[in-house]
Amino acid sequence: MADEQTSQSEYNRSRVMRFLYGNGVSSRAQIAKALGLTPAAITKITAKLIEEGLIAETGEIEGARNRRSIGLRIDPERFHVIGVKFARSLIQVGLFDLAGDAQQIWVDITTDHPSIDDAIASLKARIDRIMARFGTVVAIGMAVPGPYLRDDGHTAVVSSMQQWRDVDFPAEFADAFDVPVFIEQDARAGALAQQLFGDDGAQDDLAYYLIGEGVGLGVIERGHTIDGTRGTATEIGHVSIDVNGRRCDCGNHGCLERYCSAVAIHEALDATLDEDGGIVADSDRMTHIEACEALFALAAHGDARALELVRHVGTYVGYGLVTIINAFNPRRIIIGDIVAHAGVPLLDAAMHVVENRVLPELAATTTVTLSDLPTDAAVTGAAAVAITAFLDQPSRFADVARRRRGD
Amino acid sequence: MADEQTSQSEYNRSRVMRFLYGNGVSSRAQIAKALGLTPAAITKITAKLIEEGLIAETGEIEGARNRRSIGLRIDPERFHVIGVKFARSLIQVGLFDLAGDAQQIWVDITTDHPSIDDAIASLKARIDRIMARFGTVVAIGMAVPGPYLRDDGHTAVVSSMQQWRDVDFPAEFADAFDVPVFIEQDARAGALAQQLFGDDGAQDDLAYYLIGEGVGLGVIERGHTIDGTRGTATEIGHVSIDVNGRRCDCGNHGCLERYCSAVAIHEALDATLDEDGGIVADSDRMTHIEACEALFALAAHGDARALELVRHVGTYVGYGLVTIINAFNPRRIIIGDIVAHAGVPLLDAAMHVVENRVLPELAATTTVTLSDLPTDAAVTGAAAVAITAFLDQPSRFADVARRRRGD
Repeated sequence: MADEQTSQSEYNRSRVMRFLYGNGVSSRAQIAKALGLTPAAITKITAKLIEEGLIAETGEIEGARNRRSIGLRIDPERFHVIGVKFARSLIQVGLFDLAGDAQQIWVDITTDHPSIDDAIASLKARIDRIMARFGTVVAIGMAVPGPYLRDDGHTAVVSSMQQWRDVDFPAEFADAFDVPVFIEQDARAGALAQQLFGDDGAQDDLAYYLIGEGVGLGVIERGHTIDGTRGTATEIGHVSIDVNGRRCDCGNHGCLERYCSAVAIHEALDATLDEDGGIVADSDRMTHIEACEALFALAAHGDARALELVRHVGTYVGYGLVTIINAFNPRRIIIGDIVAHAGVPLLDAAMHVVENRVLPELAATTTVTLSDLPTDAAVTGAAAVAITAFLDQPSRFADVARRRRGD
Repeated sequence: MADEQTSQSEYNRSRVMRFLYGNGVSSRAQIAKALGLTPAAITKITAKLIEEGLIAETGEIEGARNRRSIGLRIDPERFHVIGVKFARSLIQVGLFDLAGDAQQIWVDITTDHPSIDDAIASLKARIDRIMARFGTVVAIGMAVPGPYLRDDGHTAVVSSMQQWRDVDFPAEFADAFDVPVFIEQDARAGALAQQLFGDDGAQDDLAYYLIGEGVGLGVIERGHTIDGTRGTATEIGHVSIDVNGRRCDCGNHGCLERYCSAVAIHEALDATLDEDGGIVADSDRMTHIEACEALFALAAHGDARALELVRHVGTYVGYGLVTIINAFNPRRIIIGDIVAHAGVPLLDAAMHVVENRVLPELAATTTVTLSDLPTDAAVTGAAAVAITAFLDQPSRFADVARRRRGD
């Protein structure tokens, strides 16, 4: 029973950490009021958090009825996390403070390595070097393309990660370092980043629609991700928009990602090389990202054929939005990753579909925006996975920090 | 702050009620251990629940290490709820005990009334009579076809409830009776019924796939329904399976319910009347339910054309299953309502699609069954909505009961 009582205390500490994380400097009275805790409970909880170095007292702040009281805050730079994002062709590693600000980003091109094993060894060596240099690192978050089968620890058969599919991520990484490692599907990691670092005010009810080499989705409902029983819920990229449509490696037909992923866009560009000289010259010698960026640049400069293709892709992005709204009814949807860089013409085409195909009552109350994070910052999602774990179990990570400091 | 502390106490009472509801007769020590409560806390909580008449002590039961201790239980017949299910052509009203067992069911054919207003007045009169007869009724649950816009209080434009669409359900019913009224989308109500009354053991991670006059879905994830910001999440009937497909009243194209609802099946049957004498003679003079039941009876007797249509419908039911698995990844899916009565041939055709189109790792770990509840028992879902509210706020309903008894 001791364990359950400990976890109840940790739960209350977590609630206080999350409140301070979301609301900034606050007094004990403000926290107690918001969380429904007694004065005695809040005194005990904050004393423990201060003792553990998780929060600190600031000077006096103005309270209710002009009474002055001591402020409490989390110091975002006292602890750090490492985020690792795996994609088809590269691995990004970032060092982040608790506020999600990147201190440094490293990029590793997986095809520079003779094998996956070699790429993994190189990644581990890099993380070891970062850990040695920064004693304040307390957790590592990893974002992998979905479908990621949580219990099995590996990604399922999908074309964009074919060469990674036999890697057992927890076996490789869970005990590889001196700090805990957390692994999450990449779009869900992106949703956690929007929840933690976004500033919309509606952080607990959103969807992050990742359109990169694959298409994924993460949904936050009432403050928690929708996961499913094996961690493969919200796999919008493999929801069919046409049961008689294109065959997908997952076994399904008409999967959304066969129509609007960076890979699908690249295929469409290459197809124009035969027909009519190509929208993007030499697209067949480019990476998916390069081909997409070249297309979007042309469209932005008014190239008619480029614009037409961007709008065509946007229509399919819109079909995905319609499904997301009918399946998950989030308050807002943020479109992110490579394809979001197509910008306004893509969004306009997508919203045209939403306006025509979604119940007016729902279309009017769902906000759709493009993420303003650069693609590189997708690794921020990996950091968000680690920071979420930190906020859920603050004392656990205070222990990690203490151990690393040698206290 | 008094409110928040009250709600914390009520939350703990709710946890104890839910534990006893799911686990039957248990000792204080068993409950405390399972919920991580201290002996002092469990003594206080159970004393309050006994005082309120919500639970009672039984004789001694065998505890750990053969020690005997006093058992506690909920008496399912001490309180009752009324469930009301609205469908296109009829309103069902049932009186239920807390275990979800129907004491009595009444059916009202809406078309027998000159107007919706008249049907509503008749329903209110019926509920008043039941309430007068049974002083133990403490809550009313109502199940309405989705999409039900929770904040607006009305159902959105859908063909199967066209005549009901202007009814503001909360305005009509919320304060109409001496007990609280809870309104929920019908498939979500069905999912709550499976959670409360099912006996699979995996009650907190399931989907109820309602295929009746409309097609709907309710998903329980980690013990809670997925609702969305306005209560219209999991509207699988309006998720497109073909963006170039049949037009739907909701604005979308290729909505699943246009292919496998009882209405769609009836349309398909009527179409055969012209072509070749009809699979079901005179289907055009039948209600949707009658036409479907006639088709399923023919198929069960081996009629080749009837079987072919059932399998065709089953294929579309299967496309829906594939979407449900990729979007929500529930541990099990229960198919219920009218179309579930087609039985094994329909389920076989649907599972054939699942086996071919879902990732093998997921297909192997998702259980799909037909509900064994009769269609009439769909009103059980409405009762489940009320019983869920009761278990969430037990003291609130103890107060209601006290007031009704005149204590």
